[in-house]
Formats: sequence, C-alpha cells, structure tokens
Amino acid sequence: MTIYRAYAAITLDGKIAKHKRHFSDWTSREDKKIFHKELSKADVVLVGMNTYKTAKKPLSKRNCIVLTRSVKTTRQEKSNILFCNPKGKHPKEIIKERGYKNIAVIGGSEAYSFAIRETMMNELHLTIDPLVFGRGVSLFAEKAESRKFVLQSVKRLNKKGTLYAIYAVK
Amino acid sequence: MTIYRAYAAITLDGKIAKHKRHFSDWTSREDKKIFHKELSKADVVLVGMNTYKTAKKPLSKRNCIVLTRSVKTTRQEKSNILFCNPKGKHPKEIIKERGYKNIAVIGGSEAYSFAIRETMMNELHLTIDPLVFGRGVSLFAEKAESRKFVLQSVKRLNKKGTLYAIYAVK
Repeated sequence: MTIYRAYAAITLDGKIAKHKRHFSDWTSREDKKIFHKELSKADVVLVGMNTYKTAKKPLSKRNCIVLTRSVKTTRQEKSNILFCNPKGKHPKEIIKERGYKNIAVIGGSEAYSFAIRETMMNELHLTIDPLVFGRGVSLFAEKAESRKFVLQSVKRLNKKGTLYAIYAVK
Repeated sequence: MTIYRAYAAITLDGKIAKHKRHFSDWTSREDKKIFHKELSKADVVLVGMNTYKTAKKPLSKRNCIVLTRSVKTTRQEKSNILFCNPKGKHPKEIIKERGYKNIAVIGGSEAYSFAIRETMMNELHLTIDPLVFGRGVSLFAEKAESRKFVLQSVKRLNKKGTLYAIYAVK
C-alpha cells in the first residue's frame, strides 16, 4: 500500500512562511530532528519548485519529484531529482512505475493543495509553533478543497510549547 | 490587574471562517460549552462589528464593546452594548473607566489584529478543529504584528481530536 504523508510547520495563524522565498528556518531544533527522521523513512519526496529551491542542499541526497510548470512532462534533473509537470505526467504514475510506497509531501502551499486535491494525503503531520506571523503564505493555496481529519496523536516538543500533531484524512 | 483573553476557533489551515458573514457554527459542541463558560467569567466582551452581527443573540445579555467605524467616538446602543470607534475613543479608556478586569476578545480577524497591536492580548485560547477550509478568513487581518507565545496547556476535547490550547504572550 502506498502512503502519502504531508509535513508542514505552521504558526498559530496558519502560515508556513512570511513570503514565498522564506525558508522554514524559524522552526525549532526539535522539529528539524523529527522532520529529518521522517524523511529518512520516505522513498521519495514530493515538493513544489519554490520549496525545492529554498531547500536544495538538504534535499540533494533524497529521491525527489519536483512539481513544476517549467517542463512539459518530466525531466530527470539529476539521478535522484525528477522535475515533473502534473499536467503532462501525473506524479501518481511515476510513483507506481518506480514502486515508491512511502511518499513525503513537504510543500509549499501549492504542493499541499495539489496533494489534497489529488487524494495524495493520507496523513498530515503538523508542527504548530507558538508564534504568529500576522501575514504570509497560508498552508494551502487559495481555493484548496475543504477536508475533515481525525487527530491521531499530539505531543509537546519543547518548553515554549511547539506541538507535533498527526492527523489522518477522514 | 486587567487580563485580556482572546478566543478563537481555527481550522488546521488557520482559518476562522469561510467568509466574512460565516458564523462559527462549525465548531464542536465541546468547544461551545467551554466558550460559554469562559464568557461567563468575563466582565466584558470586545468584539468587531461583523462578528457582533453574526452573534447578536448569544451576545445580547453580555457587556459588549463593539469595535466599529460607524460611530465617531462611542454610542450606548443598549444598556450593555457600547459601540466604540477606537480612533475616537480607545477601548482601554472605557475598560479603565468602568473597572473591567477580565476582558474576552472574541474576534473577528480585525479585532484580533487590533488587540494584538494594542497589547490587549495576554492569552490566546485556540480551539484547533481537525478540518481544513482551504480558503477563507485568516485568524489575523493582513499586516498584523508578529508575536511569540508560550503554550500553557493543551487538551483534546473529543474523539475527532479538537484541541484546546492556551497560549500566553511572551
């Protein structure tokens, strides 16, 4: 069975970044540790081009499918990095062809919206950081689908009270 | 000492409503119970005009300061309902004059932004409901201040996993 897990770090006001080029350097050490451990379990990372660009180095050794409009169907950018335009070739086909079972969806908001729309989100791992940006990029791009989830578990990661909550799509 | 507590029910994507006239009828029974109990402890409710309009009936017996641009300074709408334009008279003055100690800030996003900007938010009580709207009204109006909080407590309210988290402003 193929399982899609989405990972997002959000503020109390539901923002994943202050602006489009804002790398998620604001997350806690404890969250980064969990995130890396989770990524090691994944066969492949599904990521949008903007997020890929801000995280090129940490992603350089992972299998990645990078969602982009810059290619017509797909282009093998490096041995482990595949650029993919979902309008030309659906990532689900690639995942099936290559036999990937554990897929990590790591954003940004367009990639999360794509995943939820295309039923490529079985779990949503939310790191809720106790701060507000007051503006910025929302978890989902405008006009994403509305969906119900069920909380699987929640834990407090540190003193300031970062929460790590795992939700399953209902 | 005066204490300002803000109460907000949000989705996983940080939305408080699908649109401006959307009353928060989507919250759980468990949350409504807590919210009513909390409101009974408050001396006065600070609320924006849009939210007041959608919640006129449940608020009819509470002391309310309704933030609005429709009056120049203040207007006593009913014995317990005061319309107030913060540009003409600051709600803090009213709160001081009338000796209110426990203030409940109940939204919407403009009222939350006002409260956080004017240091009228000591605590933020967030009810995090396990669903996403995928669009809608954010917790804060655009260009609110960024702020850090510390988690005081968190509890699970029901089976689907609504979380009730209390944060203090750092």
